[in-house]
Amino acid sequence: MIPADHPRYRSLLARERLASCAREGVVSLEGLAAHGRGEAFDYLIGERTTESALLAERTAAAMLLSARSPVISVNGNTAALAAASIAELQSASRAGVEVNLFHRTEERVEKITRLLESAGVEVLSGRAEPLLPLSHARALCLREGIFSADSVLVPLEDGDRCQALVSMGKRVIAIDLNPLSRTARTATLTVVDELTRALPSITGACGEIDPEEGERLMRSPDNSYFLRAALDEIRGNLEHALD
Amino acid sequence: MIPADHPRYRSLLARERLASCAREGVVSLEGLAAHGRGEAFDYLIGERTTESALLAERTAAAMLLSARSPVISVNGNTAALAAASIAELQSASRAGVEVNLFHRTEERVEKITRLLESAGVEVLSGRAEPLLPLSHARALCLREGIFSADSVLVPLEDGDRCQALVSMGKRVIAIDLNPLSRTARTATLTVVDELTRALPSITGACGEIDPEEGERLMRSPDNSYFLRAALDEIRGNLEHALD
Repeated sequence: MIPADHPRYRSLLARERLASCAREGVVSLEGLAAHGRGEAFDYLIGERTTESALLAERTAAAMLLSARSPVISVNGNTAALAAASIAELQSASRAGVEVNLFHRTEERVEKITRLLESAGVEVLSGRAEPLLPLSHARALCLREGIFSADSVLVPLEDGDRCQALVSMGKRVIAIDLNPLSRTARTATLTVVDELTRALPSITGACGEIDPEEGERLMRSPDNSYFLRAALDEIRGNLEHALD
Repeated sequence: MIPADHPRYRSLLARERLASCAREGVVSLEGLAAHGRGEAFDYLIGERTTESALLAERTAAAMLLSARSPVISVNGNTAALAAASIAELQSASRAGVEVNLFHRTEERVEKITRLLESAGVEVLSGRAEPLLPLSHARALCLREGIFSADSVLVPLEDGDRCQALVSMGKRVIAIDLNPLSRTARTATLTVVDELTRALPSITGACGEIDPEEGERLMRSPDNSYFLRAALDEIRGNLEHALD
């Protein structure tokens, strides 16, 4: 048991939750390592939602609300850490939810689908087809899901896949703690924040933004501004780290 | 399969290797997440051996060569990623090799021992005793191994255990990519470099250093210099990272 007053309580809890989902086959072992990577960047960013990330989250909400056909692409780590938050965001944004995995097996797709459904998510189903410009199983997605979407929210996505979606002309909203990752640089908009802080924040903004603010936010989702702000935050934190 | 043209092929391959060793019980699930944290710092340091790390590696070699009784402490991640490099370093430095685990079970000790032996490592054996100033299984080590060593190389070590070894008066050489970690700050000398680059570099230096250079290197293994240099490297990399 982790004491609730531990300064890194949330982070330790998330790690335990992921390890337990890895034992059940929902999270891939590679996903566990990827999570550790995120932890390091969250540590560098101060384990809090920065001001610029909050603005990115409002912009993400505006993009989802104005989309013709928004889809949230969910992988094992996202389902393990934030199934209930995905349900709430789906309800606030009316986005479709598709399970899309880097280490794809039909067994894992089914396990993750069940986990999401038990949290109240409506999961898109059907026969996945090789519709993305990627090799092998990574090309698979649903024709009526990600393939047809105009805006896709990809929490914790691989760089290749983010690029493939952008190259198809989609607006891609990434949630990525590493402001230098290919995903972060390639996405239309990157939310540099930890998943379980970012999703409720986007959901909250969905309920608050009026059309005028939405228009204004949408006019310039300047991704490079958000990446630079996150980087400045990290550099500031490192400046006196050894003093 | 990770496509060979993926820009982060080497890093993803290491992650796959660790995941496969986790399936076999050599690497712990916590070890996988810890590896991910290391990946993030390696990314920030540029996934290369910096000039200051190279100097730290030569200093590490000098410390091992001048030791009366050097021991390399090997855990699951180290065995999974670098068993052959450990064999080469052992041969170049005449250090003993002891399996020492944070998440210790006798089954894991045996599996790791077999993995190391199949790579040509001579592994110290015997009955582990609670000789380190730590609680529970973490106190266990071999009387004729780590307990009697004057210098211990600990790749990827936990902060508590690093501190315990230092408190016993040993010279501790850590390999740790996070210059802010407790291990990095506590060790006598910290090599801020990735394991599979650091070990061959230390081994190479063992064959090159003459007694005079060894003396000179040994005179001031100033750990705070190496940590500050690594942090400056990271901050410098972040400075123009988005240009």
